[in-house]
Amino acid sequence: MTLKVNRQWRLKSVPAGAVSADNFEWGEAPVPELAPGTVLVRNRLLSIDPANRAWMNGATYRGQLQVGQVMEGFALGEVVQSEHPSFKPGDIVDGLLGWQDYCAIAAVELTLRRADLPLDLQVGLLGITGLTAYHGMLDVGGIRAGETVVISSAAGAVGSIAGQIARLSGCRVIGIAGGEEKCRWLVDELGFHGAVDYKRGDLRRALRSQCPDGIDVYLDNVGGEVLDAALASMNIFGRVVCCGAISQYNVAQRPPGPIAVPGVLVVKRIRMEGFLVSDYQHMRNSAEKVLSRWSISSGLKPVVDVSEGLETAPATLQRMFEGRCRGKVCVNIA
Amino acid sequence: MTLKVNRQWRLKSVPAGAVSADNFEWGEAPVPELAPGTVLVRNRLLSIDPANRAWMNGATYRGQLQVGQVMEGFALGEVVQSEHPSFKPGDIVDGLLGWQDYCAIAAVELTLRRADLPLDLQVGLLGITGLTAYHGMLDVGGIRAGETVVISSAAGAVGSIAGQIARLSGCRVIGIAGGEEKCRWLVDELGFHGAVDYKRGDLRRALRSQCPDGIDVYLDNVGGEVLDAALASMNIFGRVVCCGAISQYNVAQRPPGPIAVPGVLVVKRIRMEGFLVSDYQHMRNSAEKVLSRWSISSGLKPVVDVSEGLETAPATLQRMFEGRCRGKVCVNIA
Repeated sequence: MTLKVNRQWRLKSVPAGAVSADNFEWGEAPVPELAPGTVLVRNRLLSIDPANRAWMNGATYRGQLQVGQVMEGFALGEVVQSEHPSFKPGDIVDGLLGWQDYCAIAAVELTLRRADLPLDLQVGLLGITGLTAYHGMLDVGGIRAGETVVISSAAGAVGSIAGQIARLSGCRVIGIAGGEEKCRWLVDELGFHGAVDYKRGDLRRALRSQCPDGIDVYLDNVGGEVLDAALASMNIFGRVVCCGAISQYNVAQRPPGPIAVPGVLVVKRIRMEGFLVSDYQHMRNSAEKVLSRWSISSGLKPVVDVSEGLETAPATLQRMFEGRCRGKVCVNIA
Repeated sequence: MTLKVNRQWRLKSVPAGAVSADNFEWGEAPVPELAPGTVLVRNRLLSIDPANRAWMNGATYRGQLQVGQVMEGFALGEVVQSEHPSFKPGDIVDGLLGWQDYCAIAAVELTLRRADLPLDLQVGLLGITGLTAYHGMLDVGGIRAGETVVISSAAGAVGSIAGQIARLSGCRVIGIAGGEEKCRWLVDELGFHGAVDYKRGDLRRALRSQCPDGIDVYLDNVGGEVLDAALASMNIFGRVVCCGAISQYNVAQRPPGPIAVPGVLVVKRIRMEGFLVSDYQHMRNSAEKVLSRWSISSGLKPVVDVSEGLETAPATLQRMFEGRCRGKVCVNIA
């Protein structure tokens, strides 16, 4: 189905603190014309990510989002017209396609995906979040069977996969999540060995009690106080995999960093390492193969949380930051 | 010369903030008797280290120092009596011998050192601080020729050696030190390519200006705001070698950690790694060989700051924390 207009969400204002649906403005534009070397993509599944909020705060691995721009977002879509020999109509592609129906984009910015697999599997388990969990655990964290692994934002897109990877690798896995229900779900549905509800307070004590042998690897999606609490239980030669800092995206002013840095790092010889999944592009094929195999034959569950309709994108982003989603959050556009 | 009494400095009180000579109490005790398996050591050169202060604050890689105990300290000494076959009178040894004339200690706690080399060389360049600089730069930091390396506490025991090692390895080396005179000395005497006086303020800007291509490796002896300033200039895939946190030892309450942790670690894929030199014991011989060779034939200068007499130990520790020492600080006892 080809539309005559290109519906879009534009950034109306940069949130001072928590992002809300009010920061976005709905609009319509003509479907873009193609220049040589570009491709017209009909967006189909929009990925909603914590990084969407971070992009508003300043330059990161990309420039800062500007007010008035179409809201940036990673998405999968279908090629409808192509002025480049690498792509043809019907191809499934991904890239930074934005919160809109159509995107005209240079072919070099697109990656060809598979037409024979569900889109939500390709944006989640076999997409950026699944690969982030995979490389975060296996390459940056270097988890080994028998180790204790703690996962923050454990019910989130990366955390829910990372915890299952650690379990399948023979580790003891403890998740940190908000609320008793999510914690129970981590244990009952995803096979975590234990879970800690950070909303109950005294996270340090709760982690100590769930990790009597200390923490060997901690996957940090949060930063701030949660990171500090985990550092307090880290073992000698422990590794902190720095994957995100969701506690710091949605605030007017960044809070101070963990008090344990760098003192505890020295005393316990801890390694903290930040990474971006894009650095592991060369390993993508093998990673996808392993994740698929685990999903088909070892019970690895890809968890997705799909909202219907481009209209719902801002509210879905807000809901994610309110901790009311599970797994990979996305919006189905067409 | 054998004394009849064992002069000692005991910890009189735990400092609330800055350590001062008043936190110590002078006393005399009998020269200790030897039990089987122990060795009587006449202390000769006492090592004064920032860690001395950290030991007062709580358990680190050793238990917290208690009021009334003989002040703990690393030292070199000479065996005067031995009830263990591994040591004989005249042997030069090192270990945690304490701020006193004599120490009766289990043989297993001692390391045999060389009788044919100056003691200050063995406590500095060929001792814990020189080895810390060596492994910190080469093994943890993984410095490579052509990289920009920034050294904090650059005029200190570890920093003064680490900076010279980086220079000899073909790196561009910038030191951070307190005061214009120290900074000039780093450049003129130790061959640093540049130096930044942290007392002049706006450390971030000064580092940016001295490191126009960014920082690849940062040796952190300080923590806190200095670490934060360095993180702001780190390059992608940069490494932060966490060696100490002198900004945090001498304060009543630890300040918050660097605001850039973990956000900047993720965006720039930075690795922060804490280490203790004791983890590299298996490489000691080769490290000592390289350091000796550099010192003899490549102009590596071992810088020492020696006070005379056990009486001066507390004042020397205080002086070190006031930033009024250069290189390896020690006290000559006998």
